[in-house]
Order: sequence, then C-alpha cells, then structure tokens
Amino acid sequence: MNIDYYSDLTKIRNAKPLVHHITNYVVMNVSANITLSLGASPVMAHARPEVEDMVSIAQVFYMNIGTLSDHWIDAMLAAGRVANKKQVPVLLDPVGAGATKYRTETAKRILKEVKVDVLKGNAGEMQSLAGEKVKVRGVDSVTSAGPETAQALAKEYGLVAVVTGAKDFVSDGRRSAVISNGTDMFSRITGAGCMLGSIIAGFMAVNRDCFTASIEGLVSFEIAGEKAAVRTKLPGSFMTELINEISLLNEDAYKLARVEIK
Amino acid sequence: MNIDYYSDLTKIRNAKPLVHHITNYVVMNVSANITLSLGASPVMAHARPEVEDMVSIAQVFYMNIGTLSDHWIDAMLAAGRVANKKQVPVLLDPVGAGATKYRTETAKRILKEVKVDVLKGNAGEMQSLAGEKVKVRGVDSVTSAGPETAQALAKEYGLVAVVTGAKDFVSDGRRSAVISNGTDMFSRITGAGCMLGSIIAGFMAVNRDCFTASIEGLVSFEIAGEKAAVRTKLPGSFMTELINEISLLNEDAYKLARVEIK
Amino acid sequence: MNIDYYSDLTKIRNAKPLVHHITNYVVMNVSANITLSLGASPVMAHARPEVEDMVSIAQVFYMNIGTLSDHWIDAMLAAGRVANKKQVPVLLDPVGAGATKYRTETAKRILKEVKVDVLKGNAGEMQSLAGEKVKVRGVDSVTSAGPETAQALAKEYGLVAVVTGAKDFVSDGRRSAVISNGTDMFSRITGAGCMLGSIIAGFMAVNRDCFTASIEGLVSFEIAGEKAAVRTKLPGSFMTELINEISLLNEDAYKLARVEIK
Repeated sequence: MNIDYYSDLTKIRNAKPLVHHITNYVVMNVSANITLSLGASPVMAHARPEVEDMVSIAQVFYMNIGTLSDHWIDAMLAAGRVANKKQVPVLLDPVGAGATKYRTETAKRILKEVKVDVLKGNAGEMQSLAGEKVKVRGVDSVTSAGPETAQALAKEYGLVAVVTGAKDFVSDGRRSAVISNGTDMFSRITGAGCMLGSIIAGFMAVNRDCFTASIEGLVSFEIAGEKAAVRTKLPGSFMTELINEISLLNEDAYKLARVEIK
Repeated sequence: MNIDYYSDLTKIRNAKPLVHHITNYVVMNVSANITLSLGASPVMAHARPEVEDMVSIAQVFYMNIGTLSDHWIDAMLAAGRVANKKQVPVLLDPVGAGATKYRTETAKRILKEVKVDVLKGNAGEMQSLAGEKVKVRGVDSVTSAGPETAQALAKEYGLVAVVTGAKDFVSDGRRSAVISNGTDMFSRITGAGCMLGSIIAGFMAVNRDCFTASIEGLVSFEIAGEKAAVRTKLPGSFMTELINEISLLNEDAYKLARVEIK
Repeated sequence: MNIDYYSDLTKIRNAKPLVHHITNYVVMNVSANITLSLGASPVMAHARPEVEDMVSIAQVFYMNIGTLSDHWIDAMLAAGRVANKKQVPVLLDPVGAGATKYRTETAKRILKEVKVDVLKGNAGEMQSLAGEKVKVRGVDSVTSAGPETAQALAKEYGLVAVVTGAKDFVSDGRRSAVISNGTDMFSRITGAGCMLGSIIAGFMAVNRDCFTASIEGLVSFEIAGEKAAVRTKLPGSFMTELINEISLLNEDAYKLARVEIK
C-alpha cells in the first residue's frame, strides 16, 4: 500500500475544505490555527439552532468532548445525524473517556447514535471504550495500549480506530498500521491530541478512505512535531513552532514517515 | 480631513478605557491580549445577571457572534440596551452572517433592537446583511465587496459600516474611506477580524466620531500586521509578532497609512 | 522559617498531580499550558454531571470566576463540597469581585458554602471581599492594598489570603509574608493572575501547609516572569517566554526569591 501524503495535502491546500468543529474551550484557538496552517478552513459552531446548517456546508465534522455540557451533547448528536445523512465524514475524539462516567457514557452514546468514521483517542480513553480494565487520570493517559485495542474498537463499531501514544495504532478492522513518528514535546503542551484531530479531519475531507486519511493526518502532525522539536525543547516556543511547521510541510518532509502497514 | 492617529492612540494608552467584550470562545484570549497591547483594558462578561452592570462601567461595548448560544444573545441584547441608555458606543461583528440562518437572523435582530454605532464584517457577512446575493462558507469570506455595500448598510441602519478585505471600505452614509493597508498573513491566523474589532473599539472609546475611530482602528491594526509580516511569514510566529507590533505602534508608524477619504 | 521551594517543585514534577480547574474561557488554554510547564497535570471540567467525579480524582481544586454563568456556579459549589469531603485542597480566585454585584456575591457565596483553603486576588478584588471601600474597574486592579487586607480576610474566613500587586501579601491569620518578586510585564498580558492560581494550586497539591504553598507558587511564578522579562519586553513574546521559563525553574532560580516572613 502506497500513501501519497503530499498529494492529499496539496488537495487540502487547494480546496480549503470547511472543517466543522464542536470542540472544547481549552483548544478552540489553537485548533482553529492548526487547521488554517494545514490549509483547511475551520469553523466552530455548537448552538443547537445552527449546527445542522453548519455541518451541511462542511466537508468534515469533528466532535471532541474535552469540555462537556448537556446542551453541547445535544448539538453534537444533532449535527452528527445530519452529517450521516449528508455523507459528511465524522471524527470523534473521546477526550477523558474513562476519567468520569459522564465522559465515558457520552462517548458511547455518540458512537451508538451517530455513525462515526474515525474514533481517535489515547490509550486510556480507547481502552475504556473497548471495555478493558484501565487506569485513567484526568485527560492525560497514564497507560499504554497495543494494536489489539484499535482492532477491537474498529470491529465493534465498524470504524477506523486510532490509538495514540509513543507508537500509534490504526485499524479499520481489516488493515492495521503502526506509526512511529512523534516527539515527547507533545506531552508538554495542552491540546496536542485535539490538534491532531483537526489534522486528521482535514485529510478525511479530501480522502474518503478514512484508514489512509488517519495515517496521513498522524504522519503529517507528528513529522511537523519532530521538526518543531528540533527547533526548541521549550513548551511555549514549541507551540508556536508546531503551527509554523504544519504550514511548512512539503513533499520532502514525508520522507521522515515511519509507517508499518499490515 | 486630517486624522491624528497617534494622538488618539496616546489617549487610549493614558486613559486605558475599559472595553467590554461579549465575544466568541475561539478568540477570547488573543482579543484580551491585543486589547492590552493597544493600551486599553479588556473585560469579558456574558452572564445575564451581570452584563448590565459591566457595560455601565465600560467606555465601549463590543459584541461578536462568532460562537453563539441563545442565552448569550439575550445577554448581548440586554447589554446593548443599557449601552445605548448610558451612551456607551457599540460595535457589532456579525461573524458568520450568511453562513447559517441563525447567525444572519441574530445579527439582524441585534441591529433592530440595539443602536449599533459600528458594524464591521468581511465581504460575505456584510453582503448577507445588506441583502445582496452572496456566497458564504463558514466564517472565512470567499467573496469580495465594494464601497457600495458599506454605503448601503450605513444608510439602512444609520451607523458606520466597515467592510474588510484586501481593501477595506468604511462609510457613515455621507463620508467614505478606502484603506489599502494590511497583509495576506491575516488570513493565515484565526481571529484577525475579531482582534480588529477590539482595536476599533479601543479607538471608539476615545473618539466619538465613529467614522474616524474605525479608520484609526483599521490603520493601526493593519500597519502592525504589515510590520509583523516583515518579521515572519509563518503563522504561529506571526500571531506573536502581531501582538508585539500593536504595542510598538508609534507616531512614525502611521506614515505607512494608505487611506483615501471621499 | 525556611522554605524549600525546589524540593516541592521536584515533588510536583515527579508526582504530576491532577489540578482540576473550573476557570474562565479567556485563560483556559494558557492555564493548562502553564500547569503542564510546572510539571503538573491540568484538567478542565465544569459540567454538573461530572464535576464531583473529576474533583474526587484530583489532588487540588482551583475555582476561578473570571467568566461566570449560573450553571457554572452550581458546578463550582458541587465540586467544592466534594473537595471538602475528600480533603482535596481548594483555591478560589475571585476575578472581578467588586466590579459587578454578581461577581462579589458569587465569591462570597462560595466562601460561605465551601471551605476554601487559599483565596487569591488582586487588591481591588480582595478589598471588595473584605468590605473595604474600593475602586474596581473591570478585572484589572486600579488600587493597591497592604498586609492588613490579607490578614483581615485570613481571619474572617479561616484561610490563607493572597493579595497580589507590586508587592504580594500572604497571611494565614497568624503568619504573614511579603513577596517582592515580579515584573511589570505581568500587567501587559491577560491572565497572569489566573495562571498564578494554577501555579499555587500545583504547590498546594504537594504541600498541605497552604501558607507555604502560596509563597512557593508566588515566588516560582514571579521569578519565571522576571526571567522572561529579561528575554523580552514585548507582550506577545513575553507570554511564550513565561511558559518556557516556568519549565526551566531550577534550584538556582530560587536564589532570586525576595520573601519576608513575620
């Protein structure tokens, strides 16, 4: 399997797909900026009266439960249903699943009521959703997972599962991939996982094979992170450099991809 | 007509006027920071029980509908009515008008129920409000407008209309201005338009001729952007440099102003 | 009294305590980032159905009323009660108390219904809560206070009171401290006080003597600020350098501490 990262990145930059986010307050600004840096067009809209209209004009819909409230969940479900109807691909980031019952149940409810195309989370979140015994503390994972968690979730829900960590595992239930790119610096800033969601969503907008789009997003984000980490080991500066490096991704950068597909 | 930009900037820096924002989640942090960099004092308050008190002690009130909810609209209307009563000038940024019915109608409702002094938006937003046929996609404009849109809105609502774009058009229905400052880099970060709103609001707090204050705000923001774009072409770094450059504006900087007034 | 700043900082870096924030929209991103830079683990959760679960797994609970809504107050009170029951230490930042009746009354209500361990605010906020006659304008203090305000609040509410300003005053009703570190640059960025709250909370998680933890937090934050101000006098860059410098704090840095304890 050959993945043409740069060709899909170029499609994003040309088409500037609209990425409808319903995401958490903490990362809204950096998520919008990273989406712009990729070349896509972010929009944040969560009001029940407008989410159906907004998602209808979007090329991809990205839900993130990092800061929840009941009326936001209603909006996510409503937008998700319309996305399904209009064939707008859907990404769910179950931030903090496992940390509180409310988050775990909300993630499961969304998975039940909306056809999610890509489910992306860290080890603790994904293991919680897979029903594995797991230690979760807050929103930062303190555990690690293997490819079997991704495979189990992919099969259970009929989607592409992305389990992030030192190595990232992607599965669509049939195909599997392991990505070894990345940097420890991601754990030193807030919202790295959330921003990765925006990047994967960007690729989903131009490549309907969500397995490939997920790998493209992971590789793009993590290579940009590696390049930013060469520039600085300090967390404030890293955030700035990461946004810069996403905008600088070129064909050459993808030579750094470390992807194993089975 | 002679505009003494630097004199009004100095007034802001001395008086540190309080700029009451009800704005969107995405930009709250950068909007507060750009307001501080200008020399004014930002406050964000949206709770219905306190917005009337807060706007009463403010020197200017800035509403931005970038992320809406019903109870936020109630708060905007309540604060707007008190602002009118207390003669606190009002700026409205109709973010995303035209993209969803909810946003277009909310903007129109505010314009009907509150006396707005300055209405500032991009081409798509302003054309939507002017009833022109227009293509809008999300919150980023994909169209361009001319001075006639500003003039039509200024006359219809009895306010100063500011239509932003490669060239910006300002009209109070009688006087018109075209501003040619700016940089493409504004489109590569999120919230440039929202931050411009904070800067114009700052000038409205010290100059009650809102036509002049709008030009001063546009020119100040766009010259700072030009200077930031000399320092960097990368979006992460540009955001930082933009805030820096606003704080560095001096008398000399305004020699770069490219303003045509009719 | 000898304070071993670096030993407690090292405890934070090793234990990565979970700091549950219910804080304002403006600073959520930078507060999460500064908490990570300190070495602790931030989580933001405000939904009524989950705050009790979240605070139960946290090592410290930090409430900040910078942007209020009624349902957020309910969540703060519920989380505060559980924190008390589980002996999770509680920090309250009464942002804008004195500026609107709603904020003053909310802060007082929290102080009445929750056992707060540390109350931290600027002069205007703290004087308002102490019932002193005071001028408040928005969320930036335009007044100054002395040690007597900290002492009065410490005694009235049985807590550690921290009054920030050019000099900071800390009192637990019995012991008093004056901290003279800091930089004017803090007033040129938004959220310096809110980020200080996160840093003090971090120390509260590893040192149950809240008087000492408050001094440690103040000194750590302000020394990092002094170092950042050596690197830049520009507000955009200062924000980045401040986060960097928090992550760089070492044993040597604390030689700069200027603390007087009585």
